[in-house]
Amino acid sequence: MSRPVITLLSDYGLDDDFVGICHGVIAGICADAQVIDITHGVPRHDIRGGALLLRGALPYMPRGVHVAIVDPDVGAQRRAVALQLADERVLVGPDNGVLMPAAESCGGIVDAVDIARSRFRLEPVSATFHGRDIFAPVAARLASGVAFAQVGEPVDAAELIGLSIARARLDGNTLISHAVYIDRFGNVQLDVDHEQLIGSGLRIGHEVELALGSGAVHRARYVRTFAEVAAGELLVYEDASRLLAVAVNHGDAAERLGVTIDDELQIRQA
Amino acid sequence: MSRPVITLLSDYGLDDDFVGICHGVIAGICADAQVIDITHGVPRHDIRGGALLLRGALPYMPRGVHVAIVDPDVGAQRRAVALQLADERVLVGPDNGVLMPAAESCGGIVDAVDIARSRFRLEPVSATFHGRDIFAPVAARLASGVAFAQVGEPVDAAELIGLSIARARLDGNTLISHAVYIDRFGNVQLDVDHEQLIGSGLRIGHEVELALGSGAVHRARYVRTFAEVAAGELLVYEDASRLLAVAVNHGDAAERLGVTIDDELQIRQA
Amino acid sequence: MSRPVITLLSDYGLDDDFVGICHGVIAGICADAQVIDITHGVPRHDIRGGALLLRGALPYMPRGVHVAIVDPDVGAQRRAVALQLADERVLVGPDNGVLMPAAESCGGIVDAVDIARSRFRLEPVSATFHGRDIFAPVAARLASGVAFAQVGEPVDAAELIGLSIARARLDGNTLISHAVYIDRFGNVQLDVDHEQLIGSGLRIGHEVELALGSGAVHRARYVRTFAEVAAGELLVYEDASRLLAVAVNHGDAAERLGVTIDDELQIRQA
Repeated sequence: MSRPVITLLSDYGLDDDFVGICHGVIAGICADAQVIDITHGVPRHDIRGGALLLRGALPYMPRGVHVAIVDPDVGAQRRAVALQLADERVLVGPDNGVLMPAAESCGGIVDAVDIARSRFRLEPVSATFHGRDIFAPVAARLASGVAFAQVGEPVDAAELIGLSIARARLDGNTLISHAVYIDRFGNVQLDVDHEQLIGSGLRIGHEVELALGSGAVHRARYVRTFAEVAAGELLVYEDASRLLAVAVNHGDAAERLGVTIDDELQIRQA
Repeated sequence: MSRPVITLLSDYGLDDDFVGICHGVIAGICADAQVIDITHGVPRHDIRGGALLLRGALPYMPRGVHVAIVDPDVGAQRRAVALQLADERVLVGPDNGVLMPAAESCGGIVDAVDIARSRFRLEPVSATFHGRDIFAPVAARLASGVAFAQVGEPVDAAELIGLSIARARLDGNTLISHAVYIDRFGNVQLDVDHEQLIGSGLRIGHEVELALGSGAVHRARYVRTFAEVAAGELLVYEDASRLLAVAVNHGDAAERLGVTIDDELQIRQA
Repeated sequence: MSRPVITLLSDYGLDDDFVGICHGVIAGICADAQVIDITHGVPRHDIRGGALLLRGALPYMPRGVHVAIVDPDVGAQRRAVALQLADERVLVGPDNGVLMPAAESCGGIVDAVDIARSRFRLEPVSATFHGRDIFAPVAARLASGVAFAQVGEPVDAAELIGLSIARARLDGNTLISHAVYIDRFGNVQLDVDHEQLIGSGLRIGHEVELALGSGAVHRARYVRTFAEVAAGELLVYEDASRLLAVAVNHGDAAERLGVTIDDELQIRQA
């Protein structure tokens, strides 16, 4: 029989022992669990960034218990929740929206419980490290077979905190888009999904204009792969998450353009 | 039957292959071991920082073999040791104090061996990478069931190198404390433990004065959770390790105060 | 029976979810695999750096499927390959030279297949994330027992892209060497191997002169271990990979000397 899977995603980073301690807590409760670290490099307190990473990664993860911890209000009154999804996955994390895009894209929420006072949390519960005291132990109990309804108190899914995610729109022949993620290579992911891209009229191999909020306008080639432009040149392309992205071949587009998260980019056929 | 647990903690970082190679060596000797990385982000050569992290993390780790490598004098005459503790854990690392606070808080040392010339080390032993050549292979042998006495030569525990850890003291109504750890969020952990905090007379919800060595004096609120102060405000709180800490809600206290490790902070009711 | 081993090495870093997604893909195909991360800190696009790290690490890894992804031309026409080696290891990665030094030092290539259009890749294959879509799933199939010949189309090993690695040479009594790797401690590894070192006439315990391309000349002691020189002093020593290296005891040699990868260093007895 296959080992139960737990995935972890957080803004804890790897410089401290936060992640290691969560692994230790899980191993102590469910020694059999296979724990996969999606990433712990979410920018600090970036709920939306974490939500997008979780949503994008889940299709590549075996079904299991999926913990996401980006929790600027740890210790305050926000709920801690576990969500049973239609596709049998279970999500665990703070009720601040970080779980919601993933929940929606996995068929929606079938059942929800508040685990802030779960009988499986570690006592004394700290005010600042709910990964260790609530999320990891509850996830490990779920992975070890404890019934979903046993880990917390029922919550109406309609009461959970939502998360609004910008979506590009088409204005005439111009895509009004926003930077939603910047990876470590400086590639800038936009909120233009596959369908919007198809509808935009942009044609592979042609040039586009990128107009920034600053008034600067850049030219880039819309291509399938980096290698279709020379080193150092701007390109736009559909990235591995099937979102439109801006890059510099062998370079750093975010730096080149001076773009940060949430900045608007207007894109049109040149 | 449960898999044997090995935990690793070091200042190796993750940019190079030091940690990966230790994992490989362990897997080659004890394929069944469950290896948990507590952290490899200990600041380079910071024996005390590593010692405090190890001591703080062990209560959350399943019992097993616990390796800690912060080893500025690798290749010199310092011993390499394995320590059998009263609570059945085994510690493995250099004899420079990094293991000692954890050993004490786990009931003390029952048995000790010098493993520098262990017959289980990898030959040729390098002068610079004892994690690979001594600590990982010996830990893996212990995890795979080799008897403790077989991995090295007996050492008198009284001869091991100790580690003095600063401890705050109360001077009248003022806590004379020191910064002992700064995490990646800039939260500053002090050497004030739960008992000292209770004895200090500080009252939850009230303001305290923080006097720095520079002469600067800051005000902060002593609270249970970050959310009890506004974003950008200073707070002091009992952290997840049950030590007093200074933070800025949604900010970086170390940067704000200009505090680094070992700096003295005087704290009194305002 | 032992679990199949897969090792991963890349320039993906850990800030994003690239590595986590590869782990997820592997777990979904071969739940039993033991996955070891050699490192994901290879400098971006540094094929030679990745190749040297892979070659150096493999002797410490259990035999298995070894994936290396440093892939500046992902999406272009470069082949993706799996290589069956004489020592039973299998290498998987782009055909850009990153696998070749490791292949040679493991006895050479016995069989090679092009996996770019493997029937085991994930569809739709992205133009930019072949780790997820090709390398991880093919490696997982191989680990789960699929025959080597089934994962791709035969390739003549003689057609694979090679990689030239600088090697020091002896000019009179002077070693003409180059910096090939700089670790996170600033230790500078040179392309002088154990045999060349023996042949160089350098004598342990004596001083050497280091002449840089800039004209600067430094003195260092040739010793076995860091501890043989005072803190802050330069040393040269045979490192854990049995290559000559330059370091500063408790310091950063790369910074001190202003050396970067590929810089020439001339070394002679002082």
